[in-house]
Amino acid sequence: MADKKIVIVGAGFGGLTLAKQLEHSNFQITLIDKVNHHLFQPLLYQVAMAALSPGDIAVPIRSVFRGTKRIEVLMKEVVLFDKDKKRVYTINNDTKEFIEYDYLVIAVGNKHSYFGKNEWEKYAPGLKTLNDALTIREKVFSSLELAEQLHKIDESIQYLTFVIVGGGPTGVELAGALAEILIENVKKDYINIDARKINIYLIEGFDRILPSFPAELSHKALIDLEDLGVKILLNTRVTDINEKEVMIGDKIIKTRNIIWAAGNEVQPLVKTLNVPFDKFGRIITERNLTIKKYPEIFVIGDVAAIKDEKGDYLPAVAQVAIQQGKFVAKIIQGEGGINKNQVFKYNDRGTLATIGRAKAVAVIKGFKFTGLFAWLLWVFVHILFLIGFRNKVLVIVEWIWYYFSLKPGIRLIIPRQDTLK
Amino acid sequence: MADKKIVIVGAGFGGLTLAKQLEHSNFQITLIDKVNHHLFQPLLYQVAMAALSPGDIAVPIRSVFRGTKRIEVLMKEVVLFDKDKKRVYTINNDTKEFIEYDYLVIAVGNKHSYFGKNEWEKYAPGLKTLNDALTIREKVFSSLELAEQLHKIDESIQYLTFVIVGGGPTGVELAGALAEILIENVKKDYINIDARKINIYLIEGFDRILPSFPAELSHKALIDLEDLGVKILLNTRVTDINEKEVMIGDKIIKTRNIIWAAGNEVQPLVKTLNVPFDKFGRIITERNLTIKKYPEIFVIGDVAAIKDEKGDYLPAVAQVAIQQGKFVAKIIQGEGGINKNQVFKYNDRGTLATIGRAKAVAVIKGFKFTGLFAWLLWVFVHILFLIGFRNKVLVIVEWIWYYFSLKPGIRLIIPRQDTLK
Repeated sequence: MADKKIVIVGAGFGGLTLAKQLEHSNFQITLIDKVNHHLFQPLLYQVAMAALSPGDIAVPIRSVFRGTKRIEVLMKEVVLFDKDKKRVYTINNDTKEFIEYDYLVIAVGNKHSYFGKNEWEKYAPGLKTLNDALTIREKVFSSLELAEQLHKIDESIQYLTFVIVGGGPTGVELAGALAEILIENVKKDYINIDARKINIYLIEGFDRILPSFPAELSHKALIDLEDLGVKILLNTRVTDINEKEVMIGDKIIKTRNIIWAAGNEVQPLVKTLNVPFDKFGRIITERNLTIKKYPEIFVIGDVAAIKDEKGDYLPAVAQVAIQQGKFVAKIIQGEGGINKNQVFKYNDRGTLATIGRAKAVAVIKGFKFTGLFAWLLWVFVHILFLIGFRNKVLVIVEWIWYYFSLKPGIRLIIPRQDTLK
Repeated sequence: MADKKIVIVGAGFGGLTLAKQLEHSNFQITLIDKVNHHLFQPLLYQVAMAALSPGDIAVPIRSVFRGTKRIEVLMKEVVLFDKDKKRVYTINNDTKEFIEYDYLVIAVGNKHSYFGKNEWEKYAPGLKTLNDALTIREKVFSSLELAEQLHKIDESIQYLTFVIVGGGPTGVELAGALAEILIENVKKDYINIDARKINIYLIEGFDRILPSFPAELSHKALIDLEDLGVKILLNTRVTDINEKEVMIGDKIIKTRNIIWAAGNEVQPLVKTLNVPFDKFGRIITERNLTIKKYPEIFVIGDVAAIKDEKGDYLPAVAQVAIQQGKFVAKIIQGEGGINKNQVFKYNDRGTLATIGRAKAVAVIKGFKFTGLFAWLLWVFVHILFLIGFRNKVLVIVEWIWYYFSLKPGIRLIIPRQDTLK
């Protein structure tokens, strides 16, 4: 009998963990991703804020499986799932091809949701990919260059105004980094800009930032951010966005720098599965992470809608995806096949969010931490989970540099089209 | 009397050195560059070959002058020089503006020359900017991904064929790095590609590579490159280039990877000066680096055509530009004004080119070196001249990693357009 074939779509935390677990198994594995690298997304905001290089937080997927001939890594775009014929369709140079599977693992993550207002994306980029991070970085630092040149006219203010939409961990981390980096740098490196003219807004629809944290920590994060100079607007919803403005009801903020950190939705590809979805479009799975009637299809990570014992949906965080990847590896290799008695249980090891240097909040097994200790914990955990020794060393070097200099090293604006040509 | 105003156009080695020398002078200085960073161009090929990140070899120009209020740094494109009205015209958001000067320093560098065949550029990118390096990097690593997927068909060969046009230092360094990185990586990371099918060609019109080095070292470099698997075609001229082929007379090399390292010419902007040029379009300067009849205009770096005592043109290398920057700073600050008796003399400290790990060639004051010693010298000199402590540390870390692993860390393909959208 030929070895069973597993196709894993997506090499994020879930897909990569699963493939790694099965590296020495007897399965024939194909791991497909749109891009050639696994991204350590929790630190992506630091690439956007010029503190880290893309290469510091990304590893080529195939280098993770160096030396294994059983795992085929394909950089391809999956366009369709056919769950009845057990096929995954990909596209490459306009040619549609398919790959057959015995087991399919869907680990494609999610994308930004503009709540139906997709036209906002052009003016308010989100932060999911390295390209997103580089786009935001160039936008922010180009704005400062323009403000330096236009300092005599009122219009310069819009280049010094920054609006972050969404007060979850990404929004909070971006706002904190922006405040630390901009104000400090502008004071020292720009001779025409008055640092007091910089405005950073963080807009949250709920009545507190970090709604997934205990209220006490939300409050601490708010105070820390306000100390850094961030203006926080709670219970506030954005009603419109254009090139130069954010509208909040009848109030207008004039700005050339809008960053979107407000919501997620699944990718259009997922809909081709034609299975039950929750209200965010996520796939509703069985307790063993398979899809009803299709015990050979697993769904893991941000794209899966699965509840814990209390009936709350599991959060879209790396830890859930990693544990789900390990769970699938275990039951797929188990004796006696896959059955409904296997139940995925999430072991919540804690949640962390950083606000700035020596400022963070953390909840671990019900215990709450703030300040330097929470921040050190955050640093330790992020270095620990970063994949690759090289990446760990580089990030440590960059962080030591940044901690003492507050001078993000990678403030590069690289024109996409060479203007020399 | 108001302070005299110096406008420096270009923040490469020449322009940056000059501005740094004048940092504490009484001049009012404006330093203009198209981009916001100074680039350490000698290591640009390592960004193209995925061994270094853009941020490792670039520093924001304004961070070099942190704390000085006398140097205004502008990220703008200069479009015209008016030497009679003493004005430099820039463009920004379609608005033309001018800046007046007492002294003008032209340090704009040069660009690739396709010898009149500009249509080749699309298929054979050169290596001058970070954008160029990223373009080449993505092209090379995308080719490997495609070759991995197309391994069953003959067409995959064109993705495994790499052609570098030009056997000067850039071409030699690129060829050596490509050979080391590709063959080693393909063997370990790609399960379908047969590493023996990789072909790397280096094409040189002259009868030896590294024509600016002594013949003995050219020969040594040739042997080292051939040992690494590079096929060197001497006395060979490219007659045509298209998307899939390089034509050499009636011979055709089928390839999807062409890199241009063959020639330089000045930028169109320089012609607006309307002064005497040499055959490469470079500005012919007086012995004191000014232009005839315009003692207030200095020309330094690659854009200046100036001969040494033997009547040979000075080479387009960093050392010449740096020494010229220092020379201009000295005479501009000197007593008694600028006069024709001040003569720029180039002190040739040596020339180096690296071929691979522990392989390099060097000429220092007439002494020739090869192998490990030349390579260690190369490493030492490049770290020494790299600007910024942070950059030095990061490059050392990356090099140690690379030396022992031969696993370039930054093999990222970052789609310019997010395919999720």
